[in-house]
Amino acid sequence: MSSAAVNLKDFIRDVPDFPSKGILFRDIAPLLGNAAALAAAIRGLAEPFRTAGIAHIAAVEARGFIFGSAVARELNAGFIPLRKKGKLPCVTECFTYDLEYGVDTIEVHRDAIQPGEKILMVDDLLATGGTMAAACSLMERLGAEIAGLTFLIELTGLPGRARLGNYPINVLISY
Amino acid sequence: MSSAAVNLKDFIRDVPDFPSKGILFRDIAPLLGNAAALAAAIRGLAEPFRTAGIAHIAAVEARGFIFGSAVARELNAGFIPLRKKGKLPCVTECFTYDLEYGVDTIEVHRDAIQPGEKILMVDDLLATGGTMAAACSLMERLGAEIAGLTFLIELTGLPGRARLGNYPINVLISY
Repeated sequence: MSSAAVNLKDFIRDVPDFPSKGILFRDIAPLLGNAAALAAAIRGLAEPFRTAGIAHIAAVEARGFIFGSAVARELNAGFIPLRKKGKLPCVTECFTYDLEYGVDTIEVHRDAIQPGEKILMVDDLLATGGTMAAACSLMERLGAEIAGLTFLIELTGLPGRARLGNYPINVLISY
Repeated sequence: MSSAAVNLKDFIRDVPDFPSKGILFRDIAPLLGNAAALAAAIRGLAEPFRTAGIAHIAAVEARGFIFGSAVARELNAGFIPLRKKGKLPCVTECFTYDLEYGVDTIEVHRDAIQPGEKILMVDDLLATGGTMAAACSLMERLGAEIAGLTFLIELTGLPGRARLGNYPINVLISY
């Protein structure tokens, strides 16, 4: 089945009031569970970057890992996991960023890339863009050239794209 | 490059005393970061199950997600994320299991599979086997037929295989 034959939005399930009252959660489980939709999503996330010379895909745990390594395979690139504090065993660079309540920290191994490498950032959801902005800053500290960001879903009512607008952004499903 | 040309063990980095004194951590970051090794690992994890009629791959967050969806793509199957408590938005089945200190709970959406479906369980590491045993029990409660378990690394000095010995097990690297 070709990408064009799958309407990815048909595989997103709307769940009202999750994780809290008034929030409409866009559940990607039906998409992940359908082999043709999963394959189309992986291809779509990779497509604009096939000739971009991407050396590594980087993605933040946990949901970013779902598409990260599959897109790496699709582009014949390597995969770099960005993790919460304390999970990576070797020397790390870390980046602390603000959340709505409190702060969070993500880490990457310092030897994960060679300076100047082209990196593609992958995640399932672009919402406020806070975690992705932190992830891009972290990779740039290692000398990465961010070739683009690719997301399954964008919530266009939130300021994610404005915050990340200096990077090329690919999105497969918009709300 | 063919699978046979890549010695996966060359891409595992030994890190002494992580996460605590006396533990030798087998770091898969160099393998993930190398496109040829990553591709060979994904193919190797999938290989014995190519004609097994696998409908879905299931894997536990976060590290299980790294290989789970990529193996799903490789086998033209769907992917089912097994998550920590409270992350999945719809009706779930959950399973609580003992850790060395305390307990942990994993969850899956009740509608993730059709009863009788063949499922392949994926993870990066087989150590004590506790989380994988819980994951298998959880999937069997939904009516899954566990067609096999596939791991990048097995620590053979630990009781994982004894605990999971009723299932077909595929391992790419043993220590």
